[in-house]
Amino acid sequence: MDWVWAAGVVGATGSEGEHDVTGLLLTLLVLFVAAKIGAEIFERLRQPAVVGEILAGVIVGPQVLHWVEPSEVTFALSELGVVFLLFMVGLETKPSDLLAVGRQALLVAAGGVALPMVLGYFFALHHGSTQVTALFVGAALVATSVGITARVLARLGYLHTRTARIILGAAVIDDILGLLVLAVVSGFARTGAADFRQIALTGLYAISFVLFMLFFGCRVMARALPAIDRLRIGQSVYLGAIGFCLTLSVVAGYLGVAAIVGAFLAGMALSEASEEIGLHRHFDSLSEFFIPFFLAGIGMHVKLSSLTNPSVLVMCLVLTLLAILGKVIGCSLPVLSLGGLRAMQVGVGMVPRGEVGIIVAQLGLGLGALTDDLFAVVLFVAVVTTMVAPPLLALLYKPEPRVLHVDEDATTAEVGIDIS
Amino acid sequence: MDWVWAAGVVGATGSEGEHDVTGLLLTLLVLFVAAKIGAEIFERLRQPAVVGEILAGVIVGPQVLHWVEPSEVTFALSELGVVFLLFMVGLETKPSDLLAVGRQALLVAAGGVALPMVLGYFFALHHGSTQVTALFVGAALVATSVGITARVLARLGYLHTRTARIILGAAVIDDILGLLVLAVVSGFARTGAADFRQIALTGLYAISFVLFMLFFGCRVMARALPAIDRLRIGQSVYLGAIGFCLTLSVVAGYLGVAAIVGAFLAGMALSEASEEIGLHRHFDSLSEFFIPFFLAGIGMHVKLSSLTNPSVLVMCLVLTLLAILGKVIGCSLPVLSLGGLRAMQVGVGMVPRGEVGIIVAQLGLGLGALTDDLFAVVLFVAVVTTMVAPPLLALLYKPEPRVLHVDEDATTAEVGIDIS
Repeated sequence: MDWVWAAGVVGATGSEGEHDVTGLLLTLLVLFVAAKIGAEIFERLRQPAVVGEILAGVIVGPQVLHWVEPSEVTFALSELGVVFLLFMVGLETKPSDLLAVGRQALLVAAGGVALPMVLGYFFALHHGSTQVTALFVGAALVATSVGITARVLARLGYLHTRTARIILGAAVIDDILGLLVLAVVSGFARTGAADFRQIALTGLYAISFVLFMLFFGCRVMARALPAIDRLRIGQSVYLGAIGFCLTLSVVAGYLGVAAIVGAFLAGMALSEASEEIGLHRHFDSLSEFFIPFFLAGIGMHVKLSSLTNPSVLVMCLVLTLLAILGKVIGCSLPVLSLGGLRAMQVGVGMVPRGEVGIIVAQLGLGLGALTDDLFAVVLFVAVVTTMVAPPLLALLYKPEPRVLHVDEDATTAEVGIDIS
Repeated sequence: MDWVWAAGVVGATGSEGEHDVTGLLLTLLVLFVAAKIGAEIFERLRQPAVVGEILAGVIVGPQVLHWVEPSEVTFALSELGVVFLLFMVGLETKPSDLLAVGRQALLVAAGGVALPMVLGYFFALHHGSTQVTALFVGAALVATSVGITARVLARLGYLHTRTARIILGAAVIDDILGLLVLAVVSGFARTGAADFRQIALTGLYAISFVLFMLFFGCRVMARALPAIDRLRIGQSVYLGAIGFCLTLSVVAGYLGVAAIVGAFLAGMALSEASEEIGLHRHFDSLSEFFIPFFLAGIGMHVKLSSLTNPSVLVMCLVLTLLAILGKVIGCSLPVLSLGGLRAMQVGVGMVPRGEVGIIVAQLGLGLGALTDDLFAVVLFVAVVTTMVAPPLLALLYKPEPRVLHVDEDATTAEVGIDIS
């Protein structure tokens, strides 16, 4: 246990099989409050709140204050945070919205996979890495974490724009492409060769899953919901939706796709019924608790010690630049026809690597494909790309002051209903 | 990690510092769905849902199916579940409601501490235990877990009755008395003597904390809320309430009182403002996710293996009977003036030992004051008293069919607002 604290005069600590309730709650309290203080400070600086929450994780985490160590519990809350976040984004995205931008999303995803992969690969080769290591650095740059962009656009009130939908669609496709890239690269790292038959099968499963949910998800749910509504337990539809969200996250995981892709598809399958059954409000209350752990959890992963070595620091900065340029150029070129501004919105929206990049880096470290230094570099890239994107998005979407406060208005309106 | 599962073709498991997202989400999914299936079955049998959720934990837990093992994560979710549950009960309890029943609550708590303590002590002595062990068995019977009763009464729509308030007030006082008993008993177990000066100080801190929150909590919050409302972050009042709830839970823990007492006091401090700011709805959505982990988590603690030994089984049954009679008689006698039915409601409402009893048992095991057999017996008592009380409460409160469905009506009404 990371959190053994004194538990009053009874001294209920230390023995096997016991849990320290107070220490656990203190850990969660510190992380939660730090994240929201970071959010408040950044809101006041007219910067995106998500960046403040990530920075709060850096500060209270093991790199600066050591108040909170990453643990199984903070990881679980963080993962639930991003799962519920993507589920909510799914609730606001109808399958037809995605299908309408399907071709563009496909091209954006392809560009956003190819260019960062190539840039990362040659960067690492240039720095004397082996081919397997270089492949892994490239693969780590491929990962996109759509959670951050979704959170920023949702809070700015831009989730229903065409570019937001292109980003969401591209993120789903990007995740499947990333899965295939990672399968090839891991194969090389393990055995020196990739089992392309197996990998084709993996791709087939993942694509079938996404297409099935896209085309039949809403219909299946339209049939299931009345039955769930007839259950005797209270809040059966809301609880059923939680179960469905977790189920698809697990299925996605078994197919090798990120859990958040499953959660997004689960939300989308309920998007047509969502408004009527009031799911959004329930999940809003639920996810507001978890999301600070997701954001601060990303910040806790930074390794500042690596930055004291000048050559590593230079590598961090250069690879971050390549990671940003790779996605911005690779993802905006395919949609230049929408105009420069919108193309940039899409490109920047795909920049955050977030927790997906961190997972790839940990996999590479585990396989021995990444050295400790390169691991720290990739972590740096994952976190910094995640923090760079939100302010750029806020600029690019140039929110009107009125639109900026859409979220707060909604809250006030809800409270208004409550009172009446 | 308890949950290492294959994670698709990438095989992202096994290496140090990595987390298995899919395995984690699967664990939570199984526990959550099992609990709600248990609830649904018991609702259909016209039995309290909470019992079905506890039984679900027994079945999927390490004693029967081995699908889920208790871990730091399930413990954390369980603890958050009961903390948010008691916070919500606090939201519905104004300080004046408690003060109005203060004298009765004090007597109920005193009776409910004294009689079970004496019964447990002599039972253990009779079975050849040492004096220290006997004291610990007595102390374990003192613990009351008000979460279960609160959940049952809230779902039946009886949280605003006089007897419910007596139970809540008595539970808070019971917790302080239990703290003092445990401090004395632990002192004997550790050093053969109790430091009464230290224990008096502990009692003073705990009592001051409760009285301060009772008399000044609402006033402090009335001043703090407008400032929190002015924060720039979205949902600032709701998020501030979460922070406040966790803060008081931690403070309570440091004072040696149960975290749920802090959460209850935090909710009560916001009870006067709660309706206006719509806190209840937010916390309802939040706690509905966590409470299944609390209930199923209790079930996961049962050790069925001990029941195969006939003499241990007899001890389990006898001590459970004493635990029930101790609370029913000890808590109902002081309020006999309310009439036999109401006195019984109070007595039965105090019967569940739940997670508080489990914590005391673990402490006793850790101090060497309980043998493995007695530990299993006390766990049995904690879980079975928790499962016996809800059906009795449902009978004693004899809900009208209309009142039974109060909760569902409220949900429908909310959805109605949503649509309009």
